[in-house]
Amino acid sequence: MSGMIHDHSRWGPADQIGAANLLTVEKRLGALRSVREGRVYDVSHEIGADAPFMAPNQTPFLLSIWASWRDSIKRRRAMGASNDAGSNVERIEMTAHVGTHIDALGHFSKGDRLYNGLSAPDTVTDWGLERLGIEHAPPMITRGVLLDVAGCDGGAHLNPGRVVTPDELKRAADAARVAIEPGDIALIRTGWGRYFGVDNARYLQGEPGIDLPGARWLIEQGVVAIGCDNMAVEVLPNPSHGVAMPVHQHALAEAGVYLIENLALDEVARDGLSGFCFILLATKFRGATGSPVRPVALV
Amino acid sequence: MSGMIHDHSRWGPADQIGAANLLTVEKRLGALRSVREGRVYDVSHEIGADAPFMAPNQTPFLLSIWASWRDSIKRRRAMGASNDAGSNVERIEMTAHVGTHIDALGHFSKGDRLYNGLSAPDTVTDWGLERLGIEHAPPMITRGVLLDVAGCDGGAHLNPGRVVTPDELKRAADAARVAIEPGDIALIRTGWGRYFGVDNARYLQGEPGIDLPGARWLIEQGVVAIGCDNMAVEVLPNPSHGVAMPVHQHALAEAGVYLIENLALDEVARDGLSGFCFILLATKFRGATGSPVRPVALV
Amino acid sequence: MSGMIHDHSRWGPADQIGAANLLTVEKRLGALRSVREGRVYDVSHEIGADAPFMAPNQTPFLLSIWASWRDSIKRRRAMGASNDAGSNVERIEMTAHVGTHIDALGHFSKGDRLYNGLSAPDTVTDWGLERLGIEHAPPMITRGVLLDVAGCDGGAHLNPGRVVTPDELKRAADAARVAIEPGDIALIRTGWGRYFGVDNARYLQGEPGIDLPGARWLIEQGVVAIGCDNMAVEVLPNPSHGVAMPVHQHALAEAGVYLIENLALDEVARDGLSGFCFILLATKFRGATGSPVRPVALV
Amino acid sequence: MSGMIHDHSRWGPADQIGAANLLTVEKRLGALRSVREGRVYDVSHEIGADAPFMAPNQTPFLLSIWASWRDSIKRRRAMGASNDAGSNVERIEMTAHVGTHIDALGHFSKGDRLYNGLSAPDTVTDWGLERLGIEHAPPMITRGVLLDVAGCDGGAHLNPGRVVTPDELKRAADAARVAIEPGDIALIRTGWGRYFGVDNARYLQGEPGIDLPGARWLIEQGVVAIGCDNMAVEVLPNPSHGVAMPVHQHALAEAGVYLIENLALDEVARDGLSGFCFILLATKFRGATGSPVRPVALV
Repeated sequence: MSGMIHDHSRWGPADQIGAANLLTVEKRLGALRSVREGRVYDVSHEIGADAPFMAPNQTPFLLSIWASWRDSIKRRRAMGASNDAGSNVERIEMTAHVGTHIDALGHFSKGDRLYNGLSAPDTVTDWGLERLGIEHAPPMITRGVLLDVAGCDGGAHLNPGRVVTPDELKRAADAARVAIEPGDIALIRTGWGRYFGVDNARYLQGEPGIDLPGARWLIEQGVVAIGCDNMAVEVLPNPSHGVAMPVHQHALAEAGVYLIENLALDEVARDGLSGFCFILLATKFRGATGSPVRPVALV
Repeated sequence: MSGMIHDHSRWGPADQIGAANLLTVEKRLGALRSVREGRVYDVSHEIGADAPFMAPNQTPFLLSIWASWRDSIKRRRAMGASNDAGSNVERIEMTAHVGTHIDALGHFSKGDRLYNGLSAPDTVTDWGLERLGIEHAPPMITRGVLLDVAGCDGGAHLNPGRVVTPDELKRAADAARVAIEPGDIALIRTGWGRYFGVDNARYLQGEPGIDLPGARWLIEQGVVAIGCDNMAVEVLPNPSHGVAMPVHQHALAEAGVYLIENLALDEVARDGLSGFCFILLATKFRGATGSPVRPVALV
Repeated sequence: MSGMIHDHSRWGPADQIGAANLLTVEKRLGALRSVREGRVYDVSHEIGADAPFMAPNQTPFLLSIWASWRDSIKRRRAMGASNDAGSNVERIEMTAHVGTHIDALGHFSKGDRLYNGLSAPDTVTDWGLERLGIEHAPPMITRGVLLDVAGCDGGAHLNPGRVVTPDELKRAADAARVAIEPGDIALIRTGWGRYFGVDNARYLQGEPGIDLPGARWLIEQGVVAIGCDNMAVEVLPNPSHGVAMPVHQHALAEAGVYLIENLALDEVARDGLSGFCFILLATKFRGATGSPVRPVALV
Repeated sequence: MSGMIHDHSRWGPADQIGAANLLTVEKRLGALRSVREGRVYDVSHEIGADAPFMAPNQTPFLLSIWASWRDSIKRRRAMGASNDAGSNVERIEMTAHVGTHIDALGHFSKGDRLYNGLSAPDTVTDWGLERLGIEHAPPMITRGVLLDVAGCDGGAHLNPGRVVTPDELKRAADAARVAIEPGDIALIRTGWGRYFGVDNARYLQGEPGIDLPGARWLIEQGVVAIGCDNMAVEVLPNPSHGVAMPVHQHALAEAGVYLIENLALDEVARDGLSGFCFILLATKFRGATGSPVRPVALV
């Protein structure tokens, strides 16, 4: 069931962070220093009950007020306090793969193997990932590159099932006058993000995105992560019969490259950003297979 | 029940973000440019079932694998895929106030009023905060200032019930050769963080921290947020009879100043950081009263 | 906001169980003694992720294996056990109003008043009902009466919006040769239950059921509870403009009569049951507004 | 890993309900007819946040009001209703093994085998038990037999680690003048139930209970289920080194006999019940490994 081809050996048998090894001090400083105007773009969506989710592997997001100001004031009065300090606290039930989020390397397997040849039976426990969980993903402060392919078919966005090819990625980079370098994070804009939270049925029915050739090309350029304004980065449905989620499998389980999903890229595209400082700080949910995030682009 | 004294009027009756209004472009650029070496310090703890929580308002953190690689491979095979892509996806049940986290302005009330005089009955709904939710907190990229008071009593940390005074905060700033300015985020180190996840019973039993005078002094300096290496920033128990959580109430509900809790500050203290670039990107959980975060300090 | 008309005063100001006061020893013995053949009919549906729920007040049902045999065997081996005892344990997230269930008297209010004039602000807390919770509903072992009105329009079932009138209930009782008596539980069959878990969209879009006149008539006969093979017992949508859920409000909050929803009544109807021993044992979830149940009919 | 000895072959290779096959019409009628006085004893505890749970396999019980009367009235007014019908609905997070509950046959394995030789890898899925889930347990209406051994050591209860022997069970039956017959449900009273919800730390630290010999003896008498007033029916810790939970393993996975835990038996003991009508109706949570229940004894 193995026989996988992958790059992880670049960082040795003990490596858990994959292409995050390419996040060097130089890349970080370069990205920070590239910020001239101090303008911040928020490339994430709000997370709520209206966030789309792909059943059955993903589950709905629920948020409820658990403790309210009224009752907490009563409790505090009962304990002798008279300053009427009310607490509002919620209870959240969710998957980490809700809204704008990053996938951990342990999110996908190839058969019974995870990234770096780790055994899935030994690594995936009832209560999370013993290794390759999102808590191992370092803070990401590096250059982000926007590859805007949304208009490739003459419309406002590409359509479900439409494969974004390596050529199209290259031309988008050229048009933006950037050459992708090791340590970059590539953000692909298909335009599909416009349906997030607006028409979830449509958003979930299928999507434009890259296939293995596009993923391989980006990975060869040395990206740390690939992000996209759709649910899964990769094209759905995949045109090849007999394969499901090959980009997830290759990027996470073979190459150790992260995936960032459900990005909101319309604003950065409208303002013509190409290369920018990109910051993503995954919450360290121990053993989680991903984390909802609020990444930003700065120019 | 009202008669509150507060500063929010500085930003007008429609304001929802409080002291985050002080996060100017200048502060952001200054913070980014202050980064010389490109070294990143992670000032957050991992979040897991062993994270402390203050019952009854807070609830335990639970993470379970919801969909596993084995079963998802079976499902994909049944749908005709043979590449054996297995998904690992979790289900999380939590409060936003778990681990290292930031409080939203709507987290606390003074009687039936929230920040900026908002009506709690109208704002706090079954499913979250209609206004003042954490999704309104902007990305925070600004100068962080470490105020290390842990050694004030000659030991490794201060003790539960020990009030950190304005004088001690000032002297800590002086020792670090920084003067707190508007738009800064102040991080107070009491040393109490050493018990997080190590001895939760102790960590929760009480803590050193600021009281109202310390909070007011910091707020007068124009901080956007006050962070600390304890559960609640403020001293517990509060020495004044008849008041509960007065710093939460004043900072959040009156002054519009954020609180960041359960920080991990031992490393930045050990390396002598005083002023640094501080980045905190709260996840936009709509209507939530806070968000777990993974803030970083850069030098 | 009050000025409600109700019967609860029959059982006094301290009463919390309403018409369950009519579950006398005589009714119980009579019901048990009526069992001649010892045949059991299960009048409940299975509960799973495919159970319909009425958003936004109701939430989806989620069940996940929390601890599995594999990992628990590993843990026990690590603790020295060699008998390889594996535990499978789940985690459930749900509302009590899922699948076949009974409503507690505190489930509905009339303005700020609950059953027996209780104050909703004082009774409904963050964490459940201080009074009138399902734990107060006694074990129900009494006579059940099937009122089969499904064929009243010549078809297999009535349609959404179709009001079942007191006359129709009376005629159904007559046809079954039963006269409803105090302490009985009336089960109304509309035929709508055929869509439960089969076509939830249809099941939820609307339903046939009783309106206030039918509810009042049954309550006047002295029923303890009214059950039905639909989501809400009452007709949806209600034909009167300006009223929502009037039967829930009258039965629970005014009359102290329980409601049992999502019953599976096709089998008992097919076998011609009319009066029978009916047993319903609500789980004592403290403070809950209802409980999923597995009631049975015996003949 | 197999080589198990078990009785299940009595009911054939397709059997999923084990000793519930012994719940005949005769037993049911006999139990119902034995009810002379019509008195009901509730042998269950209330379920709340104070219910004990055995970490890590079991998880805490949480109940929160999800939708409240205030907000639902607002929503209904907004939709044009003026009758001010308020809904109170909760959200529950729990394991099925909370409070008084029954274990499904699929709850335990012997290595990779479940009851009736079923393959655990094939039967235990991410989302529950494909077979042997609690939904298959039939309604249980049969004779219950109280075996009161609480006073065997001269005190009010037995102590943790104390094994209840077959001899002691026999003598308790003799003292109660009952002989256990096929189709009975045996309820063992150790007296340990007094600590449930009163001193959970103590309740959980260990318990008196049967060991394999006692379980085998009861199973040989043909019981459908064994219940007890403790967490696990069986003695904890088990005196044999190298075995964990052998009674669970033998009863559920080998013999197909159910276990009922956390019963409240003080009242039935005080009133001298020995043989009685016992009714337990497990909620049909599909694929669940158990169900909280509210069983009753009638005389």
